[in-house]
Amino acid sequence: MKKQQYSQIGKSVPRRDGVDKVTGRGLFTSDIYLPGMLFTKILRSPHAHARIVSIDTTEALAMPGVRAIATHENTSKILYNSSAAMFTSVPGMERILDQRIFDPIVRYVGDEVAAVAADTPEQAEAAMQLIKVEYEILPHVLDPFEALKKTAPEMHPGKYATPEKYNVPGEITRMYWGVTPGNDEAQKEIDAALAKCDIVLEDTFTVPIVKQVQLETMCAVAKIEGDGGVTVWSTTQTPHPTRFILAHIFDLPASKMRVLAPPHLGGGFGVRIGLSAKAEPIAVALAQLSGRPVRVEFTREEDFTATDTRHGGTVSVRLGAMKDGTFKALDLNILLATGAYCTFGVELPAVAGAMALAIYDMPYKRYIGHSAYTNQTTAGAMRGFGNPQSNFALEQMVDRMAAKLKMDPLVLRKKNIMKADAPWFLPYPCSSSELEACIDKGAKSIGWDKRNTFDNSGTIKRGIGMAVGTHVSNAWPFCVDFDNAYLTVQVDGSLHLAAGVPDMGTGTSTSLPQVAAEAFGADVNDIYFSYGDTATTPFTIGSHASRALYAMGTAVKQAAEDARNQIIEYTAALLNKKPKALNIVNKAIEIDGQKTPVSTDDAVKGKAGAIPLADLCYYAHIRNKQFIGLGRIVPPNSPPWHACFVDLSVDTETGMVTINKIAASHDVGFAINPMIVEGQIEGGVVQGIGYALTEEITYNASGRQNHRNMHSYMVPTINDIPPIDSIIVTSKDPQGPYGAKGAGECSLVCPASAIANAVTNAIGKQMPALPMTPERILKALRN
Amino acid sequence: MKKQQYSQIGKSVPRRDGVDKVTGRGLFTSDIYLPGMLFTKILRSPHAHARIVSIDTTEALAMPGVRAIATHENTSKILYNSSAAMFTSVPGMERILDQRIFDPIVRYVGDEVAAVAADTPEQAEAAMQLIKVEYEILPHVLDPFEALKKTAPEMHPGKYATPEKYNVPGEITRMYWGVTPGNDEAQKEIDAALAKCDIVLEDTFTVPIVKQVQLETMCAVAKIEGDGGVTVWSTTQTPHPTRFILAHIFDLPASKMRVLAPPHLGGGFGVRIGLSAKAEPIAVALAQLSGRPVRVEFTREEDFTATDTRHGGTVSVRLGAMKDGTFKALDLNILLATGAYCTFGVELPAVAGAMALAIYDMPYKRYIGHSAYTNQTTAGAMRGFGNPQSNFALEQMVDRMAAKLKMDPLVLRKKNIMKADAPWFLPYPCSSSELEACIDKGAKSIGWDKRNTFDNSGTIKRGIGMAVGTHVSNAWPFCVDFDNAYLTVQVDGSLHLAAGVPDMGTGTSTSLPQVAAEAFGADVNDIYFSYGDTATTPFTIGSHASRALYAMGTAVKQAAEDARNQIIEYTAALLNKKPKALNIVNKAIEIDGQKTPVSTDDAVKGKAGAIPLADLCYYAHIRNKQFIGLGRIVPPNSPPWHACFVDLSVDTETGMVTINKIAASHDVGFAINPMIVEGQIEGGVVQGIGYALTEEITYNASGRQNHRNMHSYMVPTINDIPPIDSIIVTSKDPQGPYGAKGAGECSLVCPASAIANAVTNAIGKQMPALPMTPERILKALRN
Repeated sequence: MKKQQYSQIGKSVPRRDGVDKVTGRGLFTSDIYLPGMLFTKILRSPHAHARIVSIDTTEALAMPGVRAIATHENTSKILYNSSAAMFTSVPGMERILDQRIFDPIVRYVGDEVAAVAADTPEQAEAAMQLIKVEYEILPHVLDPFEALKKTAPEMHPGKYATPEKYNVPGEITRMYWGVTPGNDEAQKEIDAALAKCDIVLEDTFTVPIVKQVQLETMCAVAKIEGDGGVTVWSTTQTPHPTRFILAHIFDLPASKMRVLAPPHLGGGFGVRIGLSAKAEPIAVALAQLSGRPVRVEFTREEDFTATDTRHGGTVSVRLGAMKDGTFKALDLNILLATGAYCTFGVELPAVAGAMALAIYDMPYKRYIGHSAYTNQTTAGAMRGFGNPQSNFALEQMVDRMAAKLKMDPLVLRKKNIMKADAPWFLPYPCSSSELEACIDKGAKSIGWDKRNTFDNSGTIKRGIGMAVGTHVSNAWPFCVDFDNAYLTVQVDGSLHLAAGVPDMGTGTSTSLPQVAAEAFGADVNDIYFSYGDTATTPFTIGSHASRALYAMGTAVKQAAEDARNQIIEYTAALLNKKPKALNIVNKAIEIDGQKTPVSTDDAVKGKAGAIPLADLCYYAHIRNKQFIGLGRIVPPNSPPWHACFVDLSVDTETGMVTINKIAASHDVGFAINPMIVEGQIEGGVVQGIGYALTEEITYNASGRQNHRNMHSYMVPTINDIPPIDSIIVTSKDPQGPYGAKGAGECSLVCPASAIANAVTNAIGKQMPALPMTPERILKALRN
Repeated sequence: MKKQQYSQIGKSVPRRDGVDKVTGRGLFTSDIYLPGMLFTKILRSPHAHARIVSIDTTEALAMPGVRAIATHENTSKILYNSSAAMFTSVPGMERILDQRIFDPIVRYVGDEVAAVAADTPEQAEAAMQLIKVEYEILPHVLDPFEALKKTAPEMHPGKYATPEKYNVPGEITRMYWGVTPGNDEAQKEIDAALAKCDIVLEDTFTVPIVKQVQLETMCAVAKIEGDGGVTVWSTTQTPHPTRFILAHIFDLPASKMRVLAPPHLGGGFGVRIGLSAKAEPIAVALAQLSGRPVRVEFTREEDFTATDTRHGGTVSVRLGAMKDGTFKALDLNILLATGAYCTFGVELPAVAGAMALAIYDMPYKRYIGHSAYTNQTTAGAMRGFGNPQSNFALEQMVDRMAAKLKMDPLVLRKKNIMKADAPWFLPYPCSSSELEACIDKGAKSIGWDKRNTFDNSGTIKRGIGMAVGTHVSNAWPFCVDFDNAYLTVQVDGSLHLAAGVPDMGTGTSTSLPQVAAEAFGADVNDIYFSYGDTATTPFTIGSHASRALYAMGTAVKQAAEDARNQIIEYTAALLNKKPKALNIVNKAIEIDGQKTPVSTDDAVKGKAGAIPLADLCYYAHIRNKQFIGLGRIVPPNSPPWHACFVDLSVDTETGMVTINKIAASHDVGFAINPMIVEGQIEGGVVQGIGYALTEEITYNASGRQNHRNMHSYMVPTINDIPPIDSIIVTSKDPQGPYGAKGAGECSLVCPASAIANAVTNAIGKQMPALPMTPERILKALRN
């Protein structure tokens, strides 16, 4: 019923970026050409851990077209963190500063050693080959358990160590619910709680290193302005924090650094929350050295080897329940390999634990999680941010518990899931949940009642599985997270909205104007949206954490309401009416509910009717008045909920899994643009299939990635994608704009878990590791 | 004394655009290249007045590389006004809409007939030659007096006529002071007032059509965005009004039109208040037709023939005085040729009259002024906006009156000039005047006491002359005129200022940040300034009317004070102090006047000292708070004052004038950046020399310009420039930012008048016409 009140939201308005993208005329950072612009090649370490004894660039510098070569010797030595976490650590949290543009120590195969800027890419490549580097090889470590040992090589000597462990960046995350905080007390109490359970299950799961594989590789174009300011076109998801990081590295006032998207951005999935790896700082450094605009663009191989991956590692679960299926205690332990530098190696284990502990309501919970430095490519944020890792472990344990209890896993879940407004350990309210409805609708779509009824007597075994999960709608209070927005009203009543979140493909360049239009009483087609540019917008933390529509949407709604109220008050004063007598509907200001068009001049003379907004705004304009709305948020957070159902077949002769259908039902609060939400769900499901079945980066013993291109790293293609039923469930969330909650990440949280449970349902074997390759399936079948 | 309180203003901070401009790396509109961009050539009318019977583009369209041809047949037929006046007419004023992108009637030699977009300029040129146009020639008129006759051809048939006159755009400006408003009454009373004077002088002066000759010709690059929005890089002085005009022409919401400078702009001098002639609409039309980005760049000849000129015409003066030198009555009558279309043909005669009537205090004044359509290039705004025309007439009449009275013209002027706070006829207060000090300082610099002491017995005659004048600091209330500005505080306490006035060379990209820095308590080097872009800024009327520093400066000061107050209130609440106990000085928040640095954390604990702004802003940032200031103005207006003194020599054999020195003293209120003010003064003096001695566009009988390039149109070169003493006089004006008044135009108001008076002083002959070429000097000597 509520939905029908709205004219601009709850509608599948076509994406604004659609035409630009399908015609190829939209500008991406890699399309930016500036007069005199230089191209670059980056020399990377062939060693997993080494000290640079010397670099000789003499011969390379003498090559034709070469304008500058940057190394650790001629660039900023300021330590930084390449992730937005550098400027979003909450009060009291330590900021980890462990990177330099170029460091005299290289810590993984691919670490940056030098960069050449030349008139052409070919000249840069040729010169790069002539740089002579002498290395002193240092011992390296690739396994996070080994890295923690006091015998391991220290990645950042003298820093990030505890009395017991080496290579631990930041605090170890510990969460407690129903047990006394503190190492020994909590251990004793969670052990005691589990001991009182009728059934306790325990296992450890392995999750791989995978990649975002966003379409556009890292890219930045830097230009030094005449006043010493710097403009950087960038593929970042977070222009404002990136501005701050770059200003820090180059010791400039933050205001002198402009960061913008051009405006299109070929995906992100978390890989560039903060810098686009080293694209921006290398571009700026070379622009400063050469005095010319410089473009740095990563190859796909560089994207694999030198930009943040998803964290791989291990998740250990102990789950205790009573015979009636009531969950009593959950103990979760996570160790992730964070690679050579720490971007989100502290926040991510926290979210991984918090989200796993947030699904089920039970009296005792404990979580210990952290990451370890290893001599690998840095692991950072990727869609789901630790949650798919822990969900994969927990949701299989729930299925095993159901088997042990001889209960339907769907029934067991419904019995234990968190209810809205129930007390939970997260420091914000569980403001809404329609997870039960998600489960029911997903079950109906997949045909849950057919589960265990298939004829599996042949070599092809069919199974159905499910998993549930939750996520965040914002990163607060895990990190600083706030937004501001401007909304100006033009002379003809059309609106100019300015909000600094880029649209990395999530559709916010369409959905945020919808929110503004609804809140203001305008038509979405009359709204210009300026985004992703620090020069056009006030501060926003950027696009990540499923937050862009939810959090920025709140600021946008406020800005629109502010401008709307100003117009109503201005008009009321003109007409000597109470503001309550006026309302903006369909681009007109209705006076006392009247709808006949009337000019402002006539209305001032007392004529009844509705003043077209264009007429009122022109009237105000020639009297020196523009209406300017400002929106700021105090960040809330609301939980979206998700149930994923999978119907699949396993070929027990080849180990190949064929997915027959996936039903993904999501409580997104309220879908501002259902088509975009469906796109988010489908995209997450597809990435989830890759995570479940094919994607993995492994390393050889010397620390080199075995999978570093799209021939060996297998992302799902259109042929691998089953029918997907994207089910949107509405709930009444009191916090987000019009009840919207985050929809960006949840869809990637559960697919791998549900696929694993479906595989187990089909073949009766447990799946302790991702990806579930034919080799692993066959191995499981042999056991 | 007051000056020394300030740390950021009253100082010659180096221009921010300086390095970009001298190194050539700054981007101008003509530097913008976009992928797939097309180049254009415009076909122009060879006739002064004709109807287009037919246009055949078939052959041209078939030429290689040609992507689109725009004519009146396939482009918007919406009438518009190319000047900002279209959206700045004050309430009750008629908006004149007499132009189309392409019109089936052409009204001057050079009027646009068609435009070709092709892959290269050469292809566009070749295709343009093949467009076949059949014209029906119409009668034309070049003289404004002839144009007014009911026998003249009507330029815009059925419009812009009075019962007595044809071709009068808009209202005839009539101003009265001490006489009863109304045609007959006023005539009788001003005649009577003059009749009572001891001496009445009467004469008519001729002023030429001249050009701004800004360095960068008109240019625009248009790009259609995927959502149907349009981005236009433009040489306009007024991005926001230009956005509105283009939205009107193309029937788009104003919000969908983005207009920006790149950011540099090669001058303006009034030639692009509104559209850059037809550069923007033709670029947008061709971009829509071709689906490709399009650049339109005028040649210098097109700049002469098809962009607004200064108005030429006649100024008639009757001045009456008593024997003691007291001025009693002034009657002024102006008729200007406004060319084929009316841009500022209504507002400009008003300013011309108002400024002439504003200089001297006397009981009876009347003014009648208007312009007439002629089949010439449109005359519009140029630095001084009518004021140099009327000043040239009035100030010579004052010198003649002094001669008649046998008084020193300097003494006569000082006796009659307007005093601050005296009642005057302008609808805003005469808020300050140090004209007397300007006169005294200028006289001292030029050596006024040497006047009439030179040995002029040879063929070289030396003379000294002077003139005085005033101008505006804003266009209000002659037209709508207001500004808004944003100021955001970054995480490190540095400031991002956003204000939509472009910097057309007047230095506001430096002086406005100075104002913000002073008002906030910051260092000007920590301020980024985003300007000249409708996407980054709220509405501003733009850069013209000597207003950018004065009016936008007021908004910028307010925005800075707003942000500053927010910080003080936030900090006071944190520390449980009264806001009055805090002050931002030198990038720190002093608590109770303490200056020892103290962290926010320590200050919260009660430690005394000064919190570095960077620390407080980071503290607030990680608690989800950005400080955002907003400035809006209710526009005031303050009079700047100017006295110009000239020492020159006339070669009576050749008629050549050699200027020995010019002393130009200006009451600019307070010079925010004295170096920039001096630059303004010098530039105005140089243009004034050209106006006085060499510059003129004449037409042949068929309506073609005789002077349309820089070989035949003579602007002063470095060899023509004498020593210039730029004298800045401070006054206490209560209105502008820190007392600043307009400084952009005044310097061009008096030089020609002072040069004429000096010539008369040298050779004893009256100079009724500009420019005072050798031919005119010799003719005067012969009389």
